Amino acid sequence: MKNSLLSGIQISTDKEDLICYSFDASIAESALPEAVAWPKNTNEVIRLIKYANENNLSIIPRGAGTGMAGASVPSANCIVLSFEKMRKILDVDTKNMTVVVEPGIVNRRLQKEMEYLGYFYPPDPASMNICTIGGNVATNAGGPRALKYGVTRNYIMEIEAAIADGKLITTGGRTYKKAVGYDLRNLLIGSEGTLAISTKICLKILPLPEDIMTLLVFFKNIEASGIAISKIISAKIIPRTMEFMDRFAIEAIENYKPTGLPLDIAALLLIELDGYPATIKKEAERIVDICHSLGGEATVAEDDMARERLWEARRSISPALYHIKPTKINEDIVVPRDKIPLILTELQRISEETRIKIISFGHAGDGNIHVNVMVDRDNKEEYAKGWEIIKKIFEITLKLGGSISGEHGIGITKAPYINMEIKEKELELMKGIKGIFDPRGIMNPGKILG
Amino acid sequence: MKNSLLSGIQISTDKEDLICYSFDASIAESALPEAVAWPKNTNEVIRLIKYANENNLSIIPRGAGTGMAGASVPSANCIVLSFEKMRKILDVDTKNMTVVVEPGIVNRRLQKEMEYLGYFYPPDPASMNICTIGGNVATNAGGPRALKYGVTRNYIMEIEAAIADGKLITTGGRTYKKAVGYDLRNLLIGSEGTLAISTKICLKILPLPEDIMTLLVFFKNIEASGIAISKIISAKIIPRTMEFMDRFAIEAIENYKPTGLPLDIAALLLIELDGYPATIKKEAERIVDICHSLGGEATVAEDDMARERLWEARRSISPALYHIKPTKINEDIVVPRDKIPLILTELQRISEETRIKIISFGHAGDGNIHVNVMVDRDNKEEYAKGWEIIKKIFEITLKLGGSISGEHGIGITKAPYINMEIKEKELELMKGIKGIFDPRGIMNPGKILG
Ligand SMILES: Cc1cc2nc3c(=O)[nH]c(=O)nc-3n(C[C@H](O)[C@H](O)[C@H](O)COP(=O)(O)OP(=O)(O)OC[C@H]3O[C@@H](n4cnc5c(N)ncnc54)[C@H](O)[C@@H]3O)c2cc1C
Ligand SMILES: Cc1cc2nc3c(=O)[nH]c(=O)nc-3n(C[C@H](O)[C@H](O)[C@H](O)COP(=O)(O)OP(=O)(O)OC[C@H]3O[C@@H](n4cnc5c(N)ncnc54)[C@H](O)[C@@H]3O)c2cc1C
Repeated sequence: MKNSLLSGIQISTDKEDLICYSFDASIAESALPEAVAWPKNTNEVIRLIKYANENNLSIIPRGAGTGMAGASVPSANCIVLSFEKMRKILDVDTKNMTVVVEPGIVNRRLQKEMEYLGYFYPPDPASMNICTIGGNVATNAGGPRALKYGVTRNYIMEIEAAIADGKLITTGGRTYKKAVGYDLRNLLIGSEGTLAISTKICLKILPLPEDIMTLLVFFKNIEASGIAISKIISAKIIPRTMEFMDRFAIEAIENYKPTGLPLDIAALLLIELDGYPATIKKEAERIVDICHSLGGEATVAEDDMARERLWEARRSISPALYHIKPTKINEDIVVPRDKIPLILTELQRISEETRIKIISFGHAGDGNIHVNVMVDRDNKEEYAKGWEIIKKIFEITLKLGGSISGEHGIGITKAPYINMEIKEKELELMKGIKGIFDPRGIMNPGKILG
Repeated sequence: MKNSLLSGIQISTDKEDLICYSFDASIAESALPEAVAWPKNTNEVIRLIKYANENNLSIIPRGAGTGMAGASVPSANCIVLSFEKMRKILDVDTKNMTVVVEPGIVNRRLQKEMEYLGYFYPPDPASMNICTIGGNVATNAGGPRALKYGVTRNYIMEIEAAIADGKLITTGGRTYKKAVGYDLRNLLIGSEGTLAISTKICLKILPLPEDIMTLLVFFKNIEASGIAISKIISAKIIPRTMEFMDRFAIEAIENYKPTGLPLDIAALLLIELDGYPATIKKEAERIVDICHSLGGEATVAEDDMARERLWEARRSISPALYHIKPTKINEDIVVPRDKIPLILTELQRISEETRIKIISFGHAGDGNIHVNVMVDRDNKEEYAKGWEIIKKIFEITLKLGGSISGEHGIGITKAPYINMEIKEKELELMKGIKGIFDPRGIMNPGKILG
């Protein structure tokens, strides 16, 4: 790969590298890329795009590869752009409460750096120890705290990005408000690397909340846990998180990373409040009452360590599940909040009927449930059944006014299902927009729109 | 205008109607439309679009015509669609905290109806007694409370809209999160009727805050008021509003609708806090200290009536200004918050240098200042000088990292300036997107992109 466009750029065609950069956290099938490049700055990104154009290669932007839908998985004739060498914090502006970063910065690092300064970057995907802000922007990542604080989209002020012709664009702005032209920024957010490659991102930060309080609530009845969620919100309390785990998820954690969670319950809620101490104390009392009236048993995390232990447990579910069955087909459906009890009982019914384990957990406060259909890929019949179940779950979700993905995106694994949710005309408009940004279709081909 | 497509639709070609629907709150020049139509439902909207297509007419969607940029002003060969007959609240879902409305509903009415139910729809443009949610969505309207609660964009969950070919699309969704395909919803928001006509809007609502506290702070020095804003935010207090008025704005109010505001000060801030009583009390004390240290003199509004009187005064500035000079060229620039003292002193300097009165007020907490250059249109020289000043102000604003419009949008009055802010490539993408939605250019032609 000798070419003056590539001079100084770290790039590899070693088989080991090609393999390491050919998969993500999903079960998507992939091809090997022609090369993997690690640009160090925007100029190198642009030169790589030009090189790709000249050599008929497509481009796969890649953060940490924690994506759950195969959105960073290579297809034939492509070059992977990995942002591991672009992870600087370029500017922190505490007066305007903004921070400017390169796309490769890891979410957790950003969070920690902001906390040292007394600020708060809320979006906290459970993968935050590894995943990148570039990946978060491209997938519009959520996380437990989305319930109160919203998703990545709500924190993006400005994106500098390179498009398919190698031109650099700036979308959004550094001011809090702006009403000038079409909103290209929000178009890039969640576009899974199919419209542009972000090279610099300006994010909004908040003051750190005064205090945090964490509650753990056990339920003997799964439906009751769903009703509790709905009742808490109806009581006009918006906790910062309301995470749900069913019995199987708890079992998986206890087998993988024992935390002392009880194994004889049907579900638990991990609820966290933040704000002024007096306020959250009142809210916590109200929540305990509501849960109690539904048969729930609540305890408060004693200190920061106990809190962190609970969250570590929560974040270990996903890895833990791999130990149960070789393959998990995992989806992240979302329904209007009040439909949570309904969808939870439906999932239980389907699991019982098909005798295939379905493990559910997730950001239930948002109506966003991670549904894991546990199968063995090598058992053809079971695997096929698993996909039938997924389709069934999507149908029910859509009938309840929900969506087939709350936060993981479409990528390639869900591309075959997108037209269950998005109507023909809207898809046509999306394809038109893709054509405007990327007429030759070289940006992350095959993702979202198939 | 006989045509089966129009059957049952209320439509007028009376000169009086054509004139009444040919201007908005801006000084934009306009043509008379061919007709004004008042559709009663989505089906009528679609039939009107089809009729327009068949008769080579373009379509001007119109809310209440309170727009400040001429975005609803007719051009030649067009038909105005006014939403006065589509102002129903279709559904209130308190469990999921959403409300579904027709586009013609007046902002204030929605607010009041929600308040009766104990809920809160934050976006509060100062024109809220008249302006419509359809207009708010199309301009992404802000308001004083945007400081803490964000702009209209932050409250839109789902938009049903008709596009230029008469097809109905649905964008966004009824769930709190969603990661499926490109974000067409945000593309429609702020697109000033140039991409689609919204026919049904699902909005997010919040629980009503427990309590509100209103502070009025007088400053003898304009720069000090700007520094106060920045210091309050740096102290990690986010009031729900921080409105600014300069001496001339106060004078205008007192001449128009006497409220008892002092005439010997340089500026005032109208600051409002909401939340738990104990919390806002503490915050208010902090704010009083900060302002005091900068020479500001703070008082607390005694009761709801006193509060409402202050807000009435604030909302009357815009009308009051018409009484000072025949023409106000009004812009709504926005700068990063910490640049407010700078821009305020710059504005004062320009006014002194040119001897043309510039009156400033607005949502200073967001960095959003409404700048009113007071001239007489009939005085050619002065009028031309007014526009030169505007251009100068835009240049300074952009140099400070700001934007030429914080909330009023581009419409036609600012279309000649859009390329001062948006670069060529981004404009090209926007034009491409417009072409995808509206290949024949019949939707609100001439607006935004010229
Ligand atoms: C254990 C686990 C827990 C998870 N929990 C959550 C959760 O709570 N919430 C949630 O939302 N997701 C979650 N995810 C999914 C995943 O972490 C997120 O989608 C995350 O945003 C992906 O970031 P990444 O850096 O790994 O990106 P990748 O997986 O590498 O890529 C994701 C997408 O981003 C694109 N991309 C990456 N960088 C750029 C760039 N600079 N410019 C343009 N496009 C780019 C890629 O092309 C791809 O389309 C979880 C995943 C795992 C494995
Ligand atoms: C005194 C005063 C104070 C103001 N204060 C503020 C403020 O604080 N914040 C702020 O943001 N603005 C403010 N404005 C500006 C204005 O009120 C807002 O822009 C408002 O959103 C316009 O609403 P409208 O219903 O009057 O729309 P119009 O002025 O009629 O139209 C505005 C735009 O919306 C489009 N439109 C209307 N209905 C639809 C529809 N159904 N589908 C598609 N497009 C549609 C029109 O084509 C046009 O492009 C103020 C104006 C005045 C006169």
